[in-house]
Amino acid sequence: MSDTTYEAFLARVREIGQLASIESLLDWDSETYMPPNGLGVRAEQLALLASLGHQRRSDPRLGELLDQLEGRVSDPVQLTNVREVRRLHDRAVKIPEDLVRRISRASTLAKAAWAKARAESNFPAFAPHLRELLELKRQVADCLGHGGDRYDALLDEYEPGADSAQVAALFAALREPLSRFVRQLQAAPRQPDPSILRRRFPREAQERFARRLAAAIGFDFQSGRLDVSNHPFCSGTGSGDVRFTTRYREDFFNAAIFGVLHEAGHGLYEQGLDPQHAFTPMGQAVSLGIHESQSRLWENFVGRGRPFWDHFYGECQREFPEALGGVPLDSFHAAVNHVAPSMIRVEADEVTYNLHIVLRFELERALLAGQVAIEDVPSAWNQKMNELLGVTPRNDAEGCLQDIHWAMGIFGYFPTYALGNLYAAQFFEAANAAIPDLSDRLRRGDFQTLREWLRSNIHIHGQRYRPDELVARISGRPLSIEPFLRYLSDKFAPIYGL
Amino acid sequence: MSDTTYEAFLARVREIGQLASIESLLDWDSETYMPPNGLGVRAEQLALLASLGHQRRSDPRLGELLDQLEGRVSDPVQLTNVREVRRLHDRAVKIPEDLVRRISRASTLAKAAWAKARAESNFPAFAPHLRELLELKRQVADCLGHGGDRYDALLDEYEPGADSAQVAALFAALREPLSRFVRQLQAAPRQPDPSILRRRFPREAQERFARRLAAAIGFDFQSGRLDVSNHPFCSGTGSGDVRFTTRYREDFFNAAIFGVLHEAGHGLYEQGLDPQHAFTPMGQAVSLGIHESQSRLWENFVGRGRPFWDHFYGECQREFPEALGGVPLDSFHAAVNHVAPSMIRVEADEVTYNLHIVLRFELERALLAGQVAIEDVPSAWNQKMNELLGVTPRNDAEGCLQDIHWAMGIFGYFPTYALGNLYAAQFFEAANAAIPDLSDRLRRGDFQTLREWLRSNIHIHGQRYRPDELVARISGRPLSIEPFLRYLSDKFAPIYGL
Repeated sequence: MSDTTYEAFLARVREIGQLASIESLLDWDSETYMPPNGLGVRAEQLALLASLGHQRRSDPRLGELLDQLEGRVSDPVQLTNVREVRRLHDRAVKIPEDLVRRISRASTLAKAAWAKARAESNFPAFAPHLRELLELKRQVADCLGHGGDRYDALLDEYEPGADSAQVAALFAALREPLSRFVRQLQAAPRQPDPSILRRRFPREAQERFARRLAAAIGFDFQSGRLDVSNHPFCSGTGSGDVRFTTRYREDFFNAAIFGVLHEAGHGLYEQGLDPQHAFTPMGQAVSLGIHESQSRLWENFVGRGRPFWDHFYGECQREFPEALGGVPLDSFHAAVNHVAPSMIRVEADEVTYNLHIVLRFELERALLAGQVAIEDVPSAWNQKMNELLGVTPRNDAEGCLQDIHWAMGIFGYFPTYALGNLYAAQFFEAANAAIPDLSDRLRRGDFQTLREWLRSNIHIHGQRYRPDELVARISGRPLSIEPFLRYLSDKFAPIYGL
Repeated sequence: MSDTTYEAFLARVREIGQLASIESLLDWDSETYMPPNGLGVRAEQLALLASLGHQRRSDPRLGELLDQLEGRVSDPVQLTNVREVRRLHDRAVKIPEDLVRRISRASTLAKAAWAKARAESNFPAFAPHLRELLELKRQVADCLGHGGDRYDALLDEYEPGADSAQVAALFAALREPLSRFVRQLQAAPRQPDPSILRRRFPREAQERFARRLAAAIGFDFQSGRLDVSNHPFCSGTGSGDVRFTTRYREDFFNAAIFGVLHEAGHGLYEQGLDPQHAFTPMGQAVSLGIHESQSRLWENFVGRGRPFWDHFYGECQREFPEALGGVPLDSFHAAVNHVAPSMIRVEADEVTYNLHIVLRFELERALLAGQVAIEDVPSAWNQKMNELLGVTPRNDAEGCLQDIHWAMGIFGYFPTYALGNLYAAQFFEAANAAIPDLSDRLRRGDFQTLREWLRSNIHIHGQRYRPDELVARISGRPLSIEPFLRYLSDKFAPIYGL
């Protein structure tokens, strides 16, 4: 009996997953190929998909099936799917369908408004959208319930099990050592020259080289694509179809090259999921923090590492002979690791990056709590930038309009980026322990050993282990800031001659 | 009361239309940007959408709403929507959902198999897919019911009101005059030299020129796109987002240039629909035959006409100076109107084109009736080619594998192409009567007058008038082959010096 019940349950779960995968394709299309006037139709399509998905997640019949299965399934696959769908279902029944539909429609329009507002550096044009989405997400948080902090209810969607007090504690612990380390580096005897990365890097060469790197670390272009969009992202619509994007800037090496390594890192996670569990929790990524650990690991721990450029720098010079032909490897490697407070999160170095997240975390909490008014967002942003990083944006495009997230109706997501850095450090330390000659392998261009290690330890498990469980399984310890701080110090000391 | 009932009805109808628009976007993506390994996921997604659409079309609650509305609505918009949704509903309730899902999944896989089989000219590799789809569509025809000829049940889906006896009669009447005319042209004193169209036409110039032509006739690229695919098509996902495709052959002028005019003609119909009626019959094209009339009108009646090239030939020569720099307009215009039996339908001239359709119509009917076995399709095809056009394909790629339709599970669709030619002739005659200086306008590059005439007489009405009604309203007469034969004779006599 339980078998038929489980099959009936699984059919429903797969349909929910399929609807989400369709939504994801439409989102991808909206950012890449949709013509400008397609927006109205797209908003309707996405709102319909959001409400169809919500109907299925909150369906009382799904609740009954869960009731029947709980306590009666025992194998890990079934246990995982039942546990995670219970979580989805319990959240969904609390949220009215109309609210889901309104958020979907509002965010489709807000994304377009954001793109325009950012291009014109015009925050007031985006403000009404932000106000509407914030209000809608407040309602979501209240529907879900929380112990006084709406932020917790939202954060939990992206990082199951995390709460804002825990995040705030991690961030508080990071703040001082990071600031101290930035000052140490700024006073260090050796200083990288990042201007070499601002020379001219022809677009075609960038694209060719970026594709080459993504393929080298293992991204399978038969099962995915690379396209161009305003705000880089990676979207998985099943392990056979993983799409990521980038943007090319001819006057800046890092944007596309490290952007591609980052998004391809996300892509490797998606491509590494188990296709036999497609559309079910066992075949889906466990959390956004863990997802980000994979992108940051390939972008920074590997991609900004010395072994990586020992392997690729010759090829890189051949692709960009004018810009890099006369630049020694040491100078190049130092330049891509230049640490300096800057405006744009996605282009921030590894040391200051988390401070960008602290800013967003604090500002989002204040916004949700009504402690900062919408019209004061630009000034609050700039003030925090000054406080945390000692720099002030010249305009809102490089300030509070730089990220797409709020326009997507996403609040409580940013902390997962900082958690991703911490996870990545803890995983990379474990990988180095498990593969003692990892550096040599990377230097030889063997990325497969690390990728397979990540796949068998993380990707293939889908949502079987919650983030904290996964970290403990892999590293033997709970998540902490120590591996990350150790990594920074070990890495930057030689570069800066400390 | 009726107002709330109608609103409830309309909400359901719009959802059906939105699901179809999502399906259409996924189909477009499958043919343009989907990575090869995305096929499995895509098949699942499309099968889900097909069954969601079918559930809604066949929903008994929709039937109840129709019962309540019929006889109680009076304005033309409501009357149209109720009448056409009744038709959809009555068809849908006869077909089991499982069959719909199986056809969707089978056709997604068949399309990929067809592309490969065609590339390798390997009919046996495609045969099992054809067998499966044919069997599934036989079941559909039997579910729908028919008076002994399954073909009628299928044809009616694409051309409401048409039946195969009527089509067979039109084709019988066309066959002899067309064959005679071909012979006359082949013996004519003046013969075009089509080899000038087989020179080298650089791809970038083709793309630029094709976009220029599409924009000139009025295709709005803010509300649509042009991309590349194996088999050109146009798909509308709402008037703000109309996408068409083409393929470029550097050794053949016609493929992309006339292909684009053809698909852009479809696109103008979609963009000309009334956006206030989006996702409902009043905002959707009336039939595939009428759709084809719009594409053929722009491709041939306008695009292969002398006034069009009086206007564009200078520009064309500047785009292709090597190939056409020394070719006089007369020779060019004659070449694009060269009449000769050939293998490929989409590249056939206006005189022989309908004979390609006759072949498919006869073969499809025989296949559905079980009079031709699947494995005999290639030989049956080749024999008919010989009989109708006097030529024999060298392989199946230029024979029975040339069209994607069967792989899409589409049988009974081809006649709409020939009907499209007949409609186009009758509409173009009416347009010339309504706009006496139309030729001069086209020669001056004024395409707007004709486009607006088509929009206000055809596009804007959506499904308000059935095809036969529309033809009668516009031309004052029922559809006949006379305007088409008159058009051919008037056009080709001067070119061939008859």
